[in-house]
Amino acid sequence: MAALFISMEGGDGSGKSTQLENIKKYLDEKGIDYIFTREPGGTDISEKIREIILDAGNVEMADITEAFLFAASRAQHVEEKIKPALRNGITVVSDRFVDSSLAYQGYGRGLGDKVKTINDIAVAGCMPDITFFMDISPEDAMNRIANRGLDRLEREDLELHRRFYDGFKKLIEEDKEGRIVPIDANRIPEEIWKDIKEVLDDRIAD
Amino acid sequence: MAALFISMEGGDGSGKSTQLENIKKYLDEKGIDYIFTREPGGTDISEKIREIILDAGNVEMADITEAFLFAASRAQHVEEKIKPALRNGITVVSDRFVDSSLAYQGYGRGLGDKVKTINDIAVAGCMPDITFFMDISPEDAMNRIANRGLDRLEREDLELHRRFYDGFKKLIEEDKEGRIVPIDANRIPEEIWKDIKEVLDDRIAD
Repeated sequence: MAALFISMEGGDGSGKSTQLENIKKYLDEKGIDYIFTREPGGTDISEKIREIILDAGNVEMADITEAFLFAASRAQHVEEKIKPALRNGITVVSDRFVDSSLAYQGYGRGLGDKVKTINDIAVAGCMPDITFFMDISPEDAMNRIANRGLDRLEREDLELHRRFYDGFKKLIEEDKEGRIVPIDANRIPEEIWKDIKEVLDDRIAD
Repeated sequence: MAALFISMEGGDGSGKSTQLENIKKYLDEKGIDYIFTREPGGTDISEKIREIILDAGNVEMADITEAFLFAASRAQHVEEKIKPALRNGITVVSDRFVDSSLAYQGYGRGLGDKVKTINDIAVAGCMPDITFFMDISPEDAMNRIANRGLDRLEREDLELHRRFYDGFKKLIEEDKEGRIVPIDANRIPEEIWKDIKEVLDDRIAD
């Protein structure tokens, strides 16, 4: 059986981390060789690039510069870590991957097709076999974190999450091969996991 | 008169720095408002990116990652420094610009069209009005620096310079608008400057 490349996407408060832990346990139990990785980051060089992206002093950073830095980090991640693992029959699970950029920089920041063009070059054909999208509206997700009403800054933040969420919905619409699997994430973790497990069972023979 | 965007290209030992100084003096004498800048670098963020590119520890860096980092640095340079200057009627002189990437990463490293695609997005239409290319074969240039025969490491280096030089020749062939002006750089500085000054006199009214 060929190694799988699985990515997991979703905003803050979507329950992504819990389900990533479930996937780990599942792969452990099945005795499947895998590595866990994440974006932005994943390699030493990618981490250095991530530092520039996150550096609060870089207020002057243009949106397109940020998109290129994410692409640089991703290209390194693919070449140094993901491709070699898959070539060696090792399953790869990545906390976020290219869809995050397409939704955030592409739709969220309005850079559109440029981000698609850049990232097609960065991933060089190395796309996930399955991408789980933790589907929960940003309002519900933030209420779940905050468990209360939102203040002004949180509302501004919400606007960004909303654009990301809408962007992701468009990615799903455009996904002709059914790579992206939306998972209703506005439920208890056990029910969410049941859906994810079903997809994995389907793709991973015993 | 609209502000000009001038870039200067050429390998080590091509006499680029001397001619850049001549251009400065020329613009000073004409009383033309200008800024001098360089690549890779040119802004604080670009300098930070440059540090990652130059960090000798990053031996694992994939060629395509490097190309993206140069593009990120360039995009920031264009948005933060070059475009605002030109908009304000200030002439820009850049020590290297996009053609360096096209020749080095595109031709030299064999990344070809990908580098062109990435950089078209990075410069966003902000191309130089004139690009001087200091045209001297890498052998002549290195002999001029070394003033003696080359050792083994210098010969390896020479191979890279040769690919860069051949790449630049192809860029000149493909340049339909005559933007790139090759300057025979295998002469004494005074003669080289005469040619550059003639081009500038042509474009800059008194």
